[in-house]
Amino acid sequence: MFLSYLPVMSLHVEKTGGGREYKVKDMSQADFGRLEMELAEVEMPGLMACRVEFGPSLPFKGAKITGSLHMTIQTAVLIETLTALGAEVRCCSCNIFSTQYHAAAAIARDSAANFAWKGETLQEYWLCTERAHDWGPGGGPDLIVDDGGDATLLIHEGVKAKEINEKTGQLPDPSSTDNRRFHIVLTIIRDNRKVDLKKYTKMKERLVGVSEETTTGVRRLYQMQANETLLFPAINVNDSVTKIKFDNLYGYRHSLPDGLMRAADVMIAGKVAVVCGYGGVGKGCAAALKQAGAHVIVTEIDPICALQALMEGLQVLTLEDVVSVADTFATTPGNKDIIMVDHMKKMKNNAIVCNIGQFDNEIDMHGLDTYPGVKRITIKPQTDRWVFPETNSGIIVLAEGRLMNLGCATGHPSFVMSCSFTNQLIAQLELWKEKGTSNFGAKLTKLTKEQADYISVPVEGPYKPPHYRY
Amino acid sequence: MFLSYLPVMSLHVEKTGGGREYKVKDMSQADFGRLEMELAEVEMPGLMACRVEFGPSLPFKGAKITGSLHMTIQTAVLIETLTALGAEVRCCSCNIFSTQYHAAAAIARDSAANFAWKGETLQEYWLCTERAHDWGPGGGPDLIVDDGGDATLLIHEGVKAKEINEKTGQLPDPSSTDNRRFHIVLTIIRDNRKVDLKKYTKMKERLVGVSEETTTGVRRLYQMQANETLLFPAINVNDSVTKIKFDNLYGYRHSLPDGLMRAADVMIAGKVAVVCGYGGVGKGCAAALKQAGAHVIVTEIDPICALQALMEGLQVLTLEDVVSVADTFATTPGNKDIIMVDHMKKMKNNAIVCNIGQFDNEIDMHGLDTYPGVKRITIKPQTDRWVFPETNSGIIVLAEGRLMNLGCATGHPSFVMSCSFTNQLIAQLELWKEKGTSNFGAKLTKLTKEQADYISVPVEGPYKPPHYRY
Amino acid sequence: MFLSYLPVMSLHVEKTGGGREYKVKDMSQADFGRLEMELAEVEMPGLMACRVEFGPSLPFKGAKITGSLHMTIQTAVLIETLTALGAEVRCCSCNIFSTQYHAAAAIARDSAANFAWKGETLQEYWLCTERAHDWGPGGGPDLIVDDGGDATLLIHEGVKAKEINEKTGQLPDPSSTDNRRFHIVLTIIRDNRKVDLKKYTKMKERLVGVSEETTTGVRRLYQMQANETLLFPAINVNDSVTKIKFDNLYGYRHSLPDGLMRAADVMIAGKVAVVCGYGGVGKGCAAALKQAGAHVIVTEIDPICALQALMEGLQVLTLEDVVSVADTFATTPGNKDIIMVDHMKKMKNNAIVCNIGQFDNEIDMHGLDTYPGVKRITIKPQTDRWVFPETNSGIIVLAEGRLMNLGCATGHPSFVMSCSFTNQLIAQLELWKEKGTSNFGAKLTKLTKEQADYISVPVEGPYKPPHYRY
Amino acid sequence: MFLSYLPVMSLHVEKTGGGREYKVKDMSQADFGRLEMELAEVEMPGLMACRVEFGPSLPFKGAKITGSLHMTIQTAVLIETLTALGAEVRCCSCNIFSTQYHAAAAIARDSAANFAWKGETLQEYWLCTERAHDWGPGGGPDLIVDDGGDATLLIHEGVKAKEINEKTGQLPDPSSTDNRRFHIVLTIIRDNRKVDLKKYTKMKERLVGVSEETTTGVRRLYQMQANETLLFPAINVNDSVTKIKFDNLYGYRHSLPDGLMRAADVMIAGKVAVVCGYGGVGKGCAAALKQAGAHVIVTEIDPICALQALMEGLQVLTLEDVVSVADTFATTPGNKDIIMVDHMKKMKNNAIVCNIGQFDNEIDMHGLDTYPGVKRITIKPQTDRWVFPETNSGIIVLAEGRLMNLGCATGHPSFVMSCSFTNQLIAQLELWKEKGTSNFGAKLTKLTKEQADYISVPVEGPYKPPHYRY
Repeated sequence: MFLSYLPVMSLHVEKTGGGREYKVKDMSQADFGRLEMELAEVEMPGLMACRVEFGPSLPFKGAKITGSLHMTIQTAVLIETLTALGAEVRCCSCNIFSTQYHAAAAIARDSAANFAWKGETLQEYWLCTERAHDWGPGGGPDLIVDDGGDATLLIHEGVKAKEINEKTGQLPDPSSTDNRRFHIVLTIIRDNRKVDLKKYTKMKERLVGVSEETTTGVRRLYQMQANETLLFPAINVNDSVTKIKFDNLYGYRHSLPDGLMRAADVMIAGKVAVVCGYGGVGKGCAAALKQAGAHVIVTEIDPICALQALMEGLQVLTLEDVVSVADTFATTPGNKDIIMVDHMKKMKNNAIVCNIGQFDNEIDMHGLDTYPGVKRITIKPQTDRWVFPETNSGIIVLAEGRLMNLGCATGHPSFVMSCSFTNQLIAQLELWKEKGTSNFGAKLTKLTKEQADYISVPVEGPYKPPHYRY
Repeated sequence: MFLSYLPVMSLHVEKTGGGREYKVKDMSQADFGRLEMELAEVEMPGLMACRVEFGPSLPFKGAKITGSLHMTIQTAVLIETLTALGAEVRCCSCNIFSTQYHAAAAIARDSAANFAWKGETLQEYWLCTERAHDWGPGGGPDLIVDDGGDATLLIHEGVKAKEINEKTGQLPDPSSTDNRRFHIVLTIIRDNRKVDLKKYTKMKERLVGVSEETTTGVRRLYQMQANETLLFPAINVNDSVTKIKFDNLYGYRHSLPDGLMRAADVMIAGKVAVVCGYGGVGKGCAAALKQAGAHVIVTEIDPICALQALMEGLQVLTLEDVVSVADTFATTPGNKDIIMVDHMKKMKNNAIVCNIGQFDNEIDMHGLDTYPGVKRITIKPQTDRWVFPETNSGIIVLAEGRLMNLGCATGHPSFVMSCSFTNQLIAQLELWKEKGTSNFGAKLTKLTKEQADYISVPVEGPYKPPHYRY
Repeated sequence: MFLSYLPVMSLHVEKTGGGREYKVKDMSQADFGRLEMELAEVEMPGLMACRVEFGPSLPFKGAKITGSLHMTIQTAVLIETLTALGAEVRCCSCNIFSTQYHAAAAIARDSAANFAWKGETLQEYWLCTERAHDWGPGGGPDLIVDDGGDATLLIHEGVKAKEINEKTGQLPDPSSTDNRRFHIVLTIIRDNRKVDLKKYTKMKERLVGVSEETTTGVRRLYQMQANETLLFPAINVNDSVTKIKFDNLYGYRHSLPDGLMRAADVMIAGKVAVVCGYGGVGKGCAAALKQAGAHVIVTEIDPICALQALMEGLQVLTLEDVVSVADTFATTPGNKDIIMVDHMKKMKNNAIVCNIGQFDNEIDMHGLDTYPGVKRITIKPQTDRWVFPETNSGIIVLAEGRLMNLGCATGHPSFVMSCSFTNQLIAQLELWKEKGTSNFGAKLTKLTKEQADYISVPVEGPYKPPHYRY
Repeated sequence: MFLSYLPVMSLHVEKTGGGREYKVKDMSQADFGRLEMELAEVEMPGLMACRVEFGPSLPFKGAKITGSLHMTIQTAVLIETLTALGAEVRCCSCNIFSTQYHAAAAIARDSAANFAWKGETLQEYWLCTERAHDWGPGGGPDLIVDDGGDATLLIHEGVKAKEINEKTGQLPDPSSTDNRRFHIVLTIIRDNRKVDLKKYTKMKERLVGVSEETTTGVRRLYQMQANETLLFPAINVNDSVTKIKFDNLYGYRHSLPDGLMRAADVMIAGKVAVVCGYGGVGKGCAAALKQAGAHVIVTEIDPICALQALMEGLQVLTLEDVVSVADTFATTPGNKDIIMVDHMKKMKNNAIVCNIGQFDNEIDMHGLDTYPGVKRITIKPQTDRWVFPETNSGIIVLAEGRLMNLGCATGHPSFVMSCSFTNQLIAQLELWKEKGTSNFGAKLTKLTKEQADYISVPVEGPYKPPHYRY
């Protein structure tokens, strides 16, 4: 069993002068982080407006919030908005590659307990998650801000282990799974169990709810809801229009080419670029590549999305049709096993393969890594050339098949994250006690009362029914 | 009272050799209509696939369908698809300007009772609607295919009149309203009442349901549902993704510039173009104008739509900001009183003003028509220059402020209408008895069973939850 | 010999009240033409500025100008600018399909001798050209405004005939050629010769020069210059940046989709569109089609143009690669025998084939017309479906393979033609006596003296060297 | 006099094992440079084709080439193409910020004498240029590959000093100028003179010629040609279509957003972006910003360029109109004193100001630096926030006002540089002895002999006259 050699895990953390725990890569980058956070604040009007509107009344006073989030400059602004509204925060990264050193350092020094660095191992990742949940003897957090659902998952698995333990007397057995992630989760729970059998049950009891950021995490929540295993209230932030339509479309339209250019310095114009999937993220990626002068080909399973791609002048083909002629390949979130090693070995020399998505199962990195005779040449961090022995030609894989926009660039720009995170903040407020609103700078037309009546909406909005597809 | 002079109304209809009623402008254009219908069939794969799939079993056998639709070549293909599936159809136009002579003639000669020509008066319009509902002594239709809701409205008003009559003994009094449309509706009902008091009640009883095509009609249906006055089942075709996202976005992206070019022969590149509203239709219009090289400015009330416009590089301003500098103005559907005569008199000489929408209350045509000293110069049908006396400068109004894509061009292209009308057809099938599906030509990727399980959908779809915003 | 049956040719012309000759289709459309000319004047700031700047001094006083031009509303504004500057004008159309009835009528009634209608036979075409040159006993015109070079050609052939006649005593023998156009030219010259042996020699002697509008005509002029057979000064208007870069790129970007939509009412989005040639016109056509949502494929011989297409995300393939999968085909000017009947018979049912260009030899109309068993179905004027007997499937040919933007729509919009024609006007002024300039409405930055010196240009321009490629 | 304190200058250089001189920042990055050069080779088909075609015959055998070029990975591939064809090369950077450490190291270790690092002082810069010219006692190079003209300038100034010295006995007096760059040039020449009076004259005599890469350098060459002071043959590579139209348009379209994103991590969508100048570079920059969703405003002096901007839907305004509302400002090459400190202090907080161009006189860095009370906060290298004391608001200046695509990102991508550098290589070959050609991968259509004759070009091309504006 390949995981049996895992050592007993522990995480060595440090403390700030004020006694707050942290584990980051390089605390000396905190000043740099602070400078970039100050720039980001100007680009995040939604969050800053919330500070102005809600800050004085400290609505989160007394609230303990655990955040599992990409630990970036933009997230740092979110965290400081939470603390500006009165919350106490502990946080970790929701992805092993997405932490920005300077952002993590600034937060750890100035604002919140923080356990995050770029390049965590999977064991370290889950130990960080566990630390972010550890609010001491009083139980866990009041609220979770989750991205991908791992902070939520840990509590659910812990509670499940407790229930099984009560029935069977057994502790979780990590060797019962061959899923690497899950093996580690079970190990952590088992080890925690040894210390405090009620740890996760107490957490669950205290917890007011979670607001979840992304497609993958939301899918898990809906599955738990359907299975009636969801233990606490959850707000789907992902599907609010200013998240899913903005983050997915405008965010990736910005950050896919950014990642490609930083990682590979490659001209996009004139290239044949394949985008696997034409949902919200795929639409953003395809638009960016088309605008930059690529000939874009989309793969899709859903005929409606496929027709949308056609209407934008994109070709819709299967991966098999184009695997040997395309120059770049990007997978978008929502499924697994999209680009397999058998595809990769048919690609052109130096074809670029990358993934936009929470996990790393869209691209068959395991198949690539274990391909007989394959050779990996690291050009620079997050940019590897893999050479196949049969052809001596290689492909370039970005960010080890993980989300390339954070691995190779700096993720979504602040403005987009302001939209997404303002939703998170409002969801947290809603969960905690009350509902807030935000405002934007556009110069809007005002409805007359007569016009408003004519279309049956209040003068001050909302202007659309809930099912409206912006 | 301005409407008091209205004559007693009647409509003189003719009959085909086979005895089917019709009133069209020029039956000699039927051959031309047939040729264009044959072209359109190639561009309407959805409807043609339905003929192949459902035609042999004649699912509409015995069904009487009343259609109130823009009487175009594409609608003609829809009507012949209904008849190919076994239905008998009577139809009228849902707009006084949108009928294409050759389409109306071909339908009247070959396929359905038809009462429609371009340039109907409002009285003629409602008399045509009434004729389309007149299936003889057995009552009205089994099904309605409605666009804008007028065929549905007539029955509701008729039933209401009956109820009032039962309570009060009164017939509808047209002079009780100063709404011109409504005056005519009440007159028709009153006159019908004199002949057959139960006419509309019988219709309502027979009716299986209505499928409604457009935003305006759907809004009326939801209002009636909310008021509990909706008399029969209704299917909202408008909000199916292959209608609202295709017809609105791709349809108007095509037909707004088409209408502008045919009506005004004007270069779009280099112009300052204002689009009032950035919903589905506004997005299509703005995209078309931007692509053609205009500098596009959007007016909006909804901050989310406004932010979407900004993200596409469009300016968001108020109409007042730009009224004197812009070259073209287009209003999109969804509200009234958008461009008033006070705006129009501030515009540049030969600014073009037009409307995309079901009705004619977005642009203040009444205010323009009654402006003291204003002069109307008809360049060609549907293209008028209105000259203000103060400045001796003029504006160009297309299609008398009504939907310019049908008034000045030929409306949406066949392919888009195939998407919309396939929804109509399936809605009608659903209402009548069973549910159908359609397919398209894209080369789609297939899910593996494992992938399908991973995202919790069936291998054969549907692939998205109902709330998905394509 | 297929041309032997040609009758002796003559053209019956009429006269206005004032005694000016004309031959147009329908003089009753002159008012309509005037209204559209008034609209066009607002969109043609270059020409109108010339009227203001040069009009008072009547620089063309005494000048007789023959124009061979597409007889459109925009050309009418050019002609009236020439007359406003003092010229007397006689004109004809430079293409048998491009005349707009109302433009021709307004010019004939109000401003110039005019011989032009849509649908001239080739014989009529050349007789009209001959009439436009006939300024009475005093010889021909002082100046020629030419588009395509036919007015210039006629004089050159006439002079050549005279020279041969002097050497050999022979008159031109039309049966000596099997080129249909040339046969007619020789017949006209022969018949004129019979009356006045010196007619064309006198013309040549009087003539000050020609300004030529288009690629094809310019090529002929350069060939004559190279052969030392050019008889009088010529100005190449075609290659001025505000002609070739504006007319070709912006003009066709506007008028190709306009023509497609008016002729075929076809949705462009989602189509596979082939553009043959990626020069100036091809760039405009491809941009328009891409913007409208087509998947655009370019054919090219020149590797630099091909690379430019790739940089815009277009595919570069051969016609053979795509002939059976594409939905639309457009040939651009500059060569012949591009789409042959063997290509056409392999196309998809209802594929659309059209040409942008001066002549009709890009598309093999002769091959199509004489294909055994082929059937032509005229949908409407300028839109024909040709059905091949083997497959019973058809293609749609626009404007009989001639320039579709004028045949099926109204050609370039006024603004573009203002740029082109202002060049013509200035060239004519230059030829006649002096040089003029024009101005535009843009809000320009002004150079400081120091900046101007730094880049070695005068403060007031010109700002670029002659070889600058805008 | 602010420059009087300049020390006597000297440059300490090292030697490779093989005895070749170099001065680079970090030789340990040579392996990394090599890896990226191998990637770049795949993206530079033009240069690699030249290696295949010309390499075997070693056409540069015996040639000594001095290169003054941006010392990037792409330049490294050019240098190794020169050496692969037999040349010996010494090189330096043509800009103090544009060197990539790893590229410089790989070249120094493997291929050529190299004196270049990022962040040279001006003194170091010119000393490096002088070293690149120092081929030992035999005089200077046979050929110069120049970018910006500094290598050429040094020789011209040296020769001029000799001539003055012969007439007057004087050596150059650096204190005679208050231009900082020129002060240093004169100092170097004076110091060299002290050693060898004939140094630059010998260089000039040996020199076969120069091929010049960029607009600025070409302008200097034309000025010298006009003044009859040009000392040796020069080829203008800048104006070859595959340089100026590709590098300027496609190159900057790629690298402007790349630089913005790397330096400022800022979302471009929704921003108001000003581009100063709409020549080739400006067109590329504006296209990139528009595509990314910015609202783009252009400033121009040339009415034709201004009209081109309008035709793409861009606004044309003056800098004064927009200075206080725009979010980003980019100056393009060709003039000086574009954005002055008085503009900058009116800008919005955190407005981004950057320059694309060879020199640093487009943006008034001197005025900014000496503004009373201004505060400079370095966010990270090449990204500074400058805060004005009056408003306490700041602007962000990229790359200290120098070319931001090289200062903040990696410059043009390899593919574009392959086009540019293949021109350089061919120019060098032409200068040295013979003319070469290159080929590309596009699938081109072939002319028939008949077609070629019809358009009067050879079947195998060239297909356009020299004045053709691709």
